[in-house]
Amino acid sequence: MDNKEGNYVKEITNIEEDFTKWYTDIVRKAELADYTQTKGCIAIKPYGYAIWENIQKYTDEKFKKSGVKNVYFPLLISEKLLNKEKEHVEGFAPEVAWVTMGGEQELEEKLCIRPTSETMFSTLYSKWLTSWRDLPMVYNQWCNVLRWEKETRPFLRSREFLWQEGHTIHETQEEAEKRTLEMLDIYTQVIEELLAIPVLRGKKTKKEQFAGAEKTYTVETLMHDGRAIQAGTSHYFGQNFTKPFDVKFQNREGKEEYAYQTSWGISTRLIGAVIMAHGDNRGLKLPPKLAPIQAVIVPIAINKEGVEQKAQQLYNELNEKYRMEIDLRQNYTPGYKFNDWEMKGVPVRIEIGPRDIQNNVCTIVRRDTLQKENINLEEIKDKLEQIFEDIQKNMYNECKENREKRTTIAYNLDEFIKNINENQGYIKAMWCENIECEEKIKELTGAHSRCIPFEQEHIGDKCVCCGKEAKCMVVWGRQY
Amino acid sequence: MDNKEGNYVKEITNIEEDFTKWYTDIVRKAELADYTQTKGCIAIKPYGYAIWENIQKYTDEKFKKSGVKNVYFPLLISEKLLNKEKEHVEGFAPEVAWVTMGGEQELEEKLCIRPTSETMFSTLYSKWLTSWRDLPMVYNQWCNVLRWEKETRPFLRSREFLWQEGHTIHETQEEAEKRTLEMLDIYTQVIEELLAIPVLRGKKTKKEQFAGAEKTYTVETLMHDGRAIQAGTSHYFGQNFTKPFDVKFQNREGKEEYAYQTSWGISTRLIGAVIMAHGDNRGLKLPPKLAPIQAVIVPIAINKEGVEQKAQQLYNELNEKYRMEIDLRQNYTPGYKFNDWEMKGVPVRIEIGPRDIQNNVCTIVRRDTLQKENINLEEIKDKLEQIFEDIQKNMYNECKENREKRTTIAYNLDEFIKNINENQGYIKAMWCENIECEEKIKELTGAHSRCIPFEQEHIGDKCVCCGKEAKCMVVWGRQY
Repeated sequence: MDNKEGNYVKEITNIEEDFTKWYTDIVRKAELADYTQTKGCIAIKPYGYAIWENIQKYTDEKFKKSGVKNVYFPLLISEKLLNKEKEHVEGFAPEVAWVTMGGEQELEEKLCIRPTSETMFSTLYSKWLTSWRDLPMVYNQWCNVLRWEKETRPFLRSREFLWQEGHTIHETQEEAEKRTLEMLDIYTQVIEELLAIPVLRGKKTKKEQFAGAEKTYTVETLMHDGRAIQAGTSHYFGQNFTKPFDVKFQNREGKEEYAYQTSWGISTRLIGAVIMAHGDNRGLKLPPKLAPIQAVIVPIAINKEGVEQKAQQLYNELNEKYRMEIDLRQNYTPGYKFNDWEMKGVPVRIEIGPRDIQNNVCTIVRRDTLQKENINLEEIKDKLEQIFEDIQKNMYNECKENREKRTTIAYNLDEFIKNINENQGYIKAMWCENIECEEKIKELTGAHSRCIPFEQEHIGDKCVCCGKEAKCMVVWGRQY
Repeated sequence: MDNKEGNYVKEITNIEEDFTKWYTDIVRKAELADYTQTKGCIAIKPYGYAIWENIQKYTDEKFKKSGVKNVYFPLLISEKLLNKEKEHVEGFAPEVAWVTMGGEQELEEKLCIRPTSETMFSTLYSKWLTSWRDLPMVYNQWCNVLRWEKETRPFLRSREFLWQEGHTIHETQEEAEKRTLEMLDIYTQVIEELLAIPVLRGKKTKKEQFAGAEKTYTVETLMHDGRAIQAGTSHYFGQNFTKPFDVKFQNREGKEEYAYQTSWGISTRLIGAVIMAHGDNRGLKLPPKLAPIQAVIVPIAINKEGVEQKAQQLYNELNEKYRMEIDLRQNYTPGYKFNDWEMKGVPVRIEIGPRDIQNNVCTIVRRDTLQKENINLEEIKDKLEQIFEDIQKNMYNECKENREKRTTIAYNLDEFIKNINENQGYIKAMWCENIECEEKIKELTGAHSRCIPFEQEHIGDKCVCCGKEAKCMVVWGRQY
């Protein structure tokens, strides 16, 4: 066997020894992204960007079916606009980049690079909205944003990142709240069905909610090492922005009313979540629905008569139906190629050599289980579909098992600390809804409240921290 | 008839009276874009953005077939990088926006918002390139850029705009030059086939070429009023950037060599070109391949029994095959709706009322010719395809006729001035290749050299300006 585990372990950090170093190794070795001379900003390379394109396509189709319309609004926002909503500016002002010069002249008013666009959307909605007949406005943009983070990590937290930000206004509170949850459902589908990562759904606590929001809903994911990633959020604003921004309309009774607003977003952070949720010591592991390359053909003894030709023929046939690659490089051994494509997380490798051709078969190797199977050349085009489905499902299940293994219950602080230090993962515990307890838990354990799950469980009656009467169950965890 | 020309002429400026005012009227009345509080930057509204999405999709498919890989590189570029190539920085420094503060701190080195990304791509290529085996690298990004323009006009010249910028490096000069022209061919296809605008292809003069390029190729388009728009450009850089940025590789002979580079781009400017090339006094006119809505169904006497239902049924059927809209608004008359959809440039309107239903027909009205035709309800799904093709072709031909009508020859400056003042349009004239003549022509006539067309004609032997020996034929014209 060429692809002994030993070969690769030398090249990347062991996943169990130093998970975050393993992560940055994968980002670079799988050629997803690289650092740049602009501090805190990455260059997304073709393979990484192809993953993002697949996320965009899948998500955007669902958006359009649910009535979302895409737009593009300015990158630069004047200081005056940013300052209009008090909580919002307090949340974002410390981390925005400011343009102070245009051309060779100093600007009269400095402009910030959008960290998010609630203020810009609200300003324009205020200009366009007249009557209830204009509502709802359900707009979204796929764009870049910038937040001046101090510590950065490729995909997970970089100063500039790509995302979509949807901003909507509605006639009634009910309709706006419904939209907030509808978008959370779409995110759930994208993350569970496409990325093969199970999500935990719920509401953020006041402390963790978006600056300026009334309610923030979240889809939370758990990584291989038991830390959490907030994968997507959907916010209900009520009239918090529409009042200061004067977004009003004539309602059905002929009276002036302020609109009800939402916003929601997912970002290139999801690529980080995919790496951390599925990867192993051989490298990246991509679910077939998401993978830019679903299967790679590696010819064995490529210079033997007829091999390259047969491999190329198989490629042409399969490429009609799947996203395929063929590795015809002359200067690498099959063993090197196996490792290379495993590092890149390609779900299926297809080996074809002289003996296979004689027997009218090829050998397929699954990236998730490393199982090998001979498949008849006439049957492979049909069979691959089922294999991809199996892999997709298996990866989801493995991820779910890891989550279950790492989910524990704590009735008091000692248990909480013990569990999180042994296991990381999610801690389920009751909470009194007092922010002091939330802050104390964070201080003692490093765990943030992930959310107040929609699916509540009854774990006693007392707050895990203060022991007073509990109001809800919260899931806690350390995070990226 | 409801849709008397008179109804609409009142609302928008007459196209023959004030073309540029007509243009901004269309941009707003057809709801393509709006001004924002960020000076010089527009908000692209859903209808305008849907046009851009169609351009992106069509172009990106052709890119991918030709081996282009998409990436995403940082928005912010350090001053040091921008300054590395002398001509380039001289060309762009006066029109960049500078970030000088991040968070609440002043930056040590100011960062510019990319006006274009040659410097960023070159820096990263230098990091990644080792051997001839790594070549070519054919990368592209769809992104925003910013140029601090003094005078702006929606889509045609705004401070921030959306575009794609391709940047490639190659082993040989020949391969790089071939890529430059290959991309120009793709742009030709996009503009002629999708936008239905004929292009003039050629090389820019030294004066008009891109800052830092060795050669700039262009696709030029002519608008309704006879002014030109540069619709896309493709640049060959030779080693102008790869030398200062140290982008080198070990060639097949084992020697170090600097790579050969290209870049190429089209932008949201194309939306401006579509408006100006095809529009008329009724508003926008979109070619069917590009149109976000290819046909709109307007029910007549919508409250008569069975009308809305039948219209909806027709919509459902046609929407399986085409991009359809149905106008069920109760608070507008059919006449208003006709004008509204004509303003939005929808290629075909389908009217269906009680009498039509009785006769099992509907009435279709073409936006380009305003011709009406009754079509059997069983046949319309098939027939629409042919009608769209006819409209697409007819719009291209009308645009071409306008160009031919407005293309003249000048043998001397008097003729040149007379022609351009009477006709605007393209002026074909011989040139000595001396920049003084080019500048004098611009001063006297307001016309820039559009390009040295690939298809040269022999129009005498003397330069139209100085009368000395001519070296080539140039096409000149005033521009947006």
